[in-house]
Amino acid sequence: MENVKVKVAIIGSTGYGGVELIRFLMGHPHVEIVSVISSSSAGEPIADGFPHLSELMVQNLDGVDPQEIAEKADVVFTATPSGVSSKLVPQLLEVGLRVIDLSGDFRIKDRSEYEAWYRHEAAEQKWLDKAIYGLCEINGDLVIGSSFISNPGCFSTTTLLGLIPALNAGWIDPASIIIDAKSGVSGAGRGTSLTTHYAEMNENMKVYKVNKHQHIPEIEQELSLAAGSPVMVTFTTHLVPMTRGIMSTMYAKLQGDYTEEGLISLYREFYAGRPFIRIREAGKWPATKEVFGSNYCDIGFSVDDRTGRVTIIAVTDNVVKGAAGQAIQNLNLMMGWDETTGLKLSPVYP
Amino acid sequence: MENVKVKVAIIGSTGYGGVELIRFLMGHPHVEIVSVISSSSAGEPIADGFPHLSELMVQNLDGVDPQEIAEKADVVFTATPSGVSSKLVPQLLEVGLRVIDLSGDFRIKDRSEYEAWYRHEAAEQKWLDKAIYGLCEINGDLVIGSSFISNPGCFSTTTLLGLIPALNAGWIDPASIIIDAKSGVSGAGRGTSLTTHYAEMNENMKVYKVNKHQHIPEIEQELSLAAGSPVMVTFTTHLVPMTRGIMSTMYAKLQGDYTEEGLISLYREFYAGRPFIRIREAGKWPATKEVFGSNYCDIGFSVDDRTGRVTIIAVTDNVVKGAAGQAIQNLNLMMGWDETTGLKLSPVYP
Amino acid sequence: MENVKVKVAIIGSTGYGGVELIRFLMGHPHVEIVSVISSSSAGEPIADGFPHLSELMVQNLDGVDPQEIAEKADVVFTATPSGVSSKLVPQLLEVGLRVIDLSGDFRIKDRSEYEAWYRHEAAEQKWLDKAIYGLCEINGDLVIGSSFISNPGCFSTTTLLGLIPALNAGWIDPASIIIDAKSGVSGAGRGTSLTTHYAEMNENMKVYKVNKHQHIPEIEQELSLAAGSPVMVTFTTHLVPMTRGIMSTMYAKLQGDYTEEGLISLYREFYAGRPFIRIREAGKWPATKEVFGSNYCDIGFSVDDRTGRVTIIAVTDNVVKGAAGQAIQNLNLMMGWDETTGLKLSPVYP
Amino acid sequence: MENVKVKVAIIGSTGYGGVELIRFLMGHPHVEIVSVISSSSAGEPIADGFPHLSELMVQNLDGVDPQEIAEKADVVFTATPSGVSSKLVPQLLEVGLRVIDLSGDFRIKDRSEYEAWYRHEAAEQKWLDKAIYGLCEINGDLVIGSSFISNPGCFSTTTLLGLIPALNAGWIDPASIIIDAKSGVSGAGRGTSLTTHYAEMNENMKVYKVNKHQHIPEIEQELSLAAGSPVMVTFTTHLVPMTRGIMSTMYAKLQGDYTEEGLISLYREFYAGRPFIRIREAGKWPATKEVFGSNYCDIGFSVDDRTGRVTIIAVTDNVVKGAAGQAIQNLNLMMGWDETTGLKLSPVYP
Repeated sequence: MENVKVKVAIIGSTGYGGVELIRFLMGHPHVEIVSVISSSSAGEPIADGFPHLSELMVQNLDGVDPQEIAEKADVVFTATPSGVSSKLVPQLLEVGLRVIDLSGDFRIKDRSEYEAWYRHEAAEQKWLDKAIYGLCEINGDLVIGSSFISNPGCFSTTTLLGLIPALNAGWIDPASIIIDAKSGVSGAGRGTSLTTHYAEMNENMKVYKVNKHQHIPEIEQELSLAAGSPVMVTFTTHLVPMTRGIMSTMYAKLQGDYTEEGLISLYREFYAGRPFIRIREAGKWPATKEVFGSNYCDIGFSVDDRTGRVTIIAVTDNVVKGAAGQAIQNLNLMMGWDETTGLKLSPVYP
Repeated sequence: MENVKVKVAIIGSTGYGGVELIRFLMGHPHVEIVSVISSSSAGEPIADGFPHLSELMVQNLDGVDPQEIAEKADVVFTATPSGVSSKLVPQLLEVGLRVIDLSGDFRIKDRSEYEAWYRHEAAEQKWLDKAIYGLCEINGDLVIGSSFISNPGCFSTTTLLGLIPALNAGWIDPASIIIDAKSGVSGAGRGTSLTTHYAEMNENMKVYKVNKHQHIPEIEQELSLAAGSPVMVTFTTHLVPMTRGIMSTMYAKLQGDYTEEGLISLYREFYAGRPFIRIREAGKWPATKEVFGSNYCDIGFSVDDRTGRVTIIAVTDNVVKGAAGQAIQNLNLMMGWDETTGLKLSPVYP
Repeated sequence: MENVKVKVAIIGSTGYGGVELIRFLMGHPHVEIVSVISSSSAGEPIADGFPHLSELMVQNLDGVDPQEIAEKADVVFTATPSGVSSKLVPQLLEVGLRVIDLSGDFRIKDRSEYEAWYRHEAAEQKWLDKAIYGLCEINGDLVIGSSFISNPGCFSTTTLLGLIPALNAGWIDPASIIIDAKSGVSGAGRGTSLTTHYAEMNENMKVYKVNKHQHIPEIEQELSLAAGSPVMVTFTTHLVPMTRGIMSTMYAKLQGDYTEEGLISLYREFYAGRPFIRIREAGKWPATKEVFGSNYCDIGFSVDDRTGRVTIIAVTDNVVKGAAGQAIQNLNLMMGWDETTGLKLSPVYP
Repeated sequence: MENVKVKVAIIGSTGYGGVELIRFLMGHPHVEIVSVISSSSAGEPIADGFPHLSELMVQNLDGVDPQEIAEKADVVFTATPSGVSSKLVPQLLEVGLRVIDLSGDFRIKDRSEYEAWYRHEAAEQKWLDKAIYGLCEINGDLVIGSSFISNPGCFSTTTLLGLIPALNAGWIDPASIIIDAKSGVSGAGRGTSLTTHYAEMNENMKVYKVNKHQHIPEIEQELSLAAGSPVMVTFTTHLVPMTRGIMSTMYAKLQGDYTEEGLISLYREFYAGRPFIRIREAGKWPATKEVFGSNYCDIGFSVDDRTGRVTIIAVTDNVVKGAAGQAIQNLNLMMGWDETTGLKLSPVYP
């Protein structure tokens, strides 16, 4: 297997998710990048827009042509916006490609729910039905051998990995969940706006889309599956003046006398054999910089005996575990490789 | 009154609260700074440690001597650490000075509660009984004419101003309150530590003292007064990579069909005539930069019909409304001046 | 004079220079802001785009109509882009307004020089001849009583204040001057671009317009006047990941055995009576934060006996002394007021 | 060779250079880390102080014992402070270890020169004579097969790589060199100080050690070798509010009619076969973020026909090419491996 490399193409190579896929895939022992694709910059060297790739990636950007891609590649990553993937991915699947889609378009199985939150037309139901929701530590078994993965959102990944073990065990009250999420600014993508203008965002903390973020239905869908009954959450997103990193601070009512040590054991057992989850000891909580540039999700706990609530803190790098890293983890699972292949990089610190 | 200036001294002039008092008091029309005091740097020009004050403040720092202070000054600000103020402030009061204390030492009326959270001895009960809790927009009437003010904490100010109107009106369930607070790093003071080391804190978000922060008893004491019954909260503090600014994101169960518009009206009425509180319109929420360098507390709301919860977002500049600015507002009230005197500065933007 | 306020209008109120004019002018004792003007947002409340001004500035933005402005105002600040001011300012002058222009359009007296660097048409020569170059500490006498000021550029101000005394005294070789300038990102204005996109600029240092910056001819024109002969400089501009602040590090060959102490004396004498210039003691150099939010220009020196060169470090806040603050200083001089009126604010620290 | 791994130890594993060595060496195919050593934290798990290494590096820290190290390891990296290495390294060499020293103690061959700049005793001359100055792209041939490398300083690396080709070719006047260097704050190490306190350094730019930085003699020593005659430089260091990155902006008089294209060709030829040097095209200059987290040194040029000077801009990541990365590059050369082994990581962007 080491000798015959899998050929991959990346659509949306000029976004942050795209270049992060390139960063990791360049070091992946079983993969060859055969095409980097951008609808807007086709024909240009990728290093023109991303000088950090100078001499590292000398290919010119290709245009989006499913048939051509199918001739070159085995697997394609679509790091394309919601509303684009819904149309493009079916074409790629139909020409026989395996697809790992990083958009939100195939995460929500209920079309009306999608349309209520995203405010444009959902993908066709048959494709929604085929897409595996690739939250690796939860659905990894379904990913193995599949050919179409919908890669989870950054807030969703961080939040779900932090809540599912406790919810699944019945330790927390599903009706009590409040999620206070914070993100670095790269989560907003490379498109310019006043919100992400340096002089407006530096030395500033903002809240946005309060109770309206499109990751809410995705989180609720997966929490409901874990709880075995419908779950609704209160969810707030904040922009923090840093480039990378998500911290999800989650609050819930405990349904019993559970301790921090108990939660730590529960989570360590739940995630046994899953190398990208690290559970902090009692009294310690993760900081976003401790996962910067890596595929880790680190989790810590505080139980408040006074109020009977637990506070769960989970952090990821939104561009890695929240996007490109998990997408490659899905590729690894899909192909039957060790899930850490090409991803065993230490966080960059400081 | 404009001709005879009130003479003030500042103890703790070499901390961030101290130099911010100097920034505002230099422009205060009714005040003369007669002594800037530091136990550690007495005898040195203040601009040696703070070159931004070069030529603006040429006085040398004085040592701490209550008798001497009383000979020079009418009012003294104590920007001293908790554990120091409890001993020092009574000496200042006993020599006839009016005192505005910025430490946590006189905020909590119950000595055992103080000692449980601060883990050192509380001030004497008689002084605790005398201290007015100077949350201006709530207790302003008590401040007028008083001679001893305990200036509220930065997290407490932001949180209490955000919750009290709704709690007082009975619109939110006192048992449901969760507070997710974020602070710029200046809140940790000028003492160096690995936590506040630039390379560790930049491009990083941290959580600390989860459920253990010493502002919890202060917040609960005041919320209980507003609710008319004991209130306990879940309270988390985060460090954000910026210098100034606090954002308190607060969650509570609504006890009725209240709308954002209703909350906005309630708060605008509650804070009528209080120029430092600004309530955002429906669908808008404040960012910390919008109050940077100023004494404002800006507040916004989101009601989630799906879960029946309200999210309240309040922001302040921790060094101003959370410390020096509110202390001067207390001075103004104490002396019978307009509460905005010397504080009518626009936020610095960008 | 204190009773009858001068009426001012601000064109370009929705840029960073414009809102900074508002911040300072709101506290100016002799000024009334009668109109805030924006061609793009006329009719809207200014706080819609700048929530930090909520309740502080409730006027709606006006459109640009010279006749209307002349009916309301005595003086107008034009914080408009280069290429716009050249056309607009003459109209304002012709209806009898006094004008302080913050653009580059009237700084360079030689039209062909302007056109070579700015690459569009210069203003008419007759207006260029009328404009006083308002570098207050150098040309203050010319500003008094004048009616048309061209306010210097941010890099130019910082650099010229740092070089002119030594050049004028003949202490440095005019042919040897190298200027390495660094700016915070607000200097690029409020218009969005990939360069100023948060995720691209945070944790990054960039160099731009090397040897091509349009402040070069302005600097050379004024240095030539100070030297009494043509001066050409090497000038590089860098973007630093901070919002405000300029540091100009300047290198020149000493034409004699001058010491740091000698330079300090020279500069203190040169700038005697000029409160916004602060000269650091030997062995100390200014940092940008030490002037943040203020109108100061702080200067320090290092003489290298080994190479016979002097290094001069000057810092300003680009939005204040580099733009709005100096414009108000020009207003003060123009009107015969103390030049610090409305500008006596301490730097904001930290 | 791939089967028998070289055993390495790292002294100073709890500094930023140390953990960066760990980050890269964990992925190095020919290396096994057998001991991570810290005099101050011996016995503790390294992840206690560096949670980003949780589960990645589970070894406890060892104490410093040359004999013990020699029993375990083949090569040792000493990421120890200047003044410590001078004593420790000889002991390690004497027990037969190969040493790559990251301190300044063996870089300067002239003991009196070292002592003039470092202000403490220099290492013994015999060890200074043995140490190879490991600037890989210049001295790589000397490194091959050697057993004792003095790894260059961060400012020195960036500056020397930027200047040597032009100086060596005689294109620039050696007497005219001015170096304006800027560094991220991690360059100051992990020890806390007011200078590197977040609230003091954020939104701030500082200049320090003007004409006094200890990298000056190192730079001059190597430039003199390249020029074939003594070179003295003017050198200024600045702290920029970012964690990683060095930019060296260098000015020199051209000794002929050289163009940007000519310089680009000269440098590309000079560095042919050296994969970590990337020369930008004419009109483009590197930004620090374009090498973040990687071992690249990127270089760009601007020739100013007006003044006859060239401006050379070179950037590195101070922790990688300026420390740990180059140290590993030296290991690779020392052992006869491809110099990119274990270092072929893309910069992290954004």
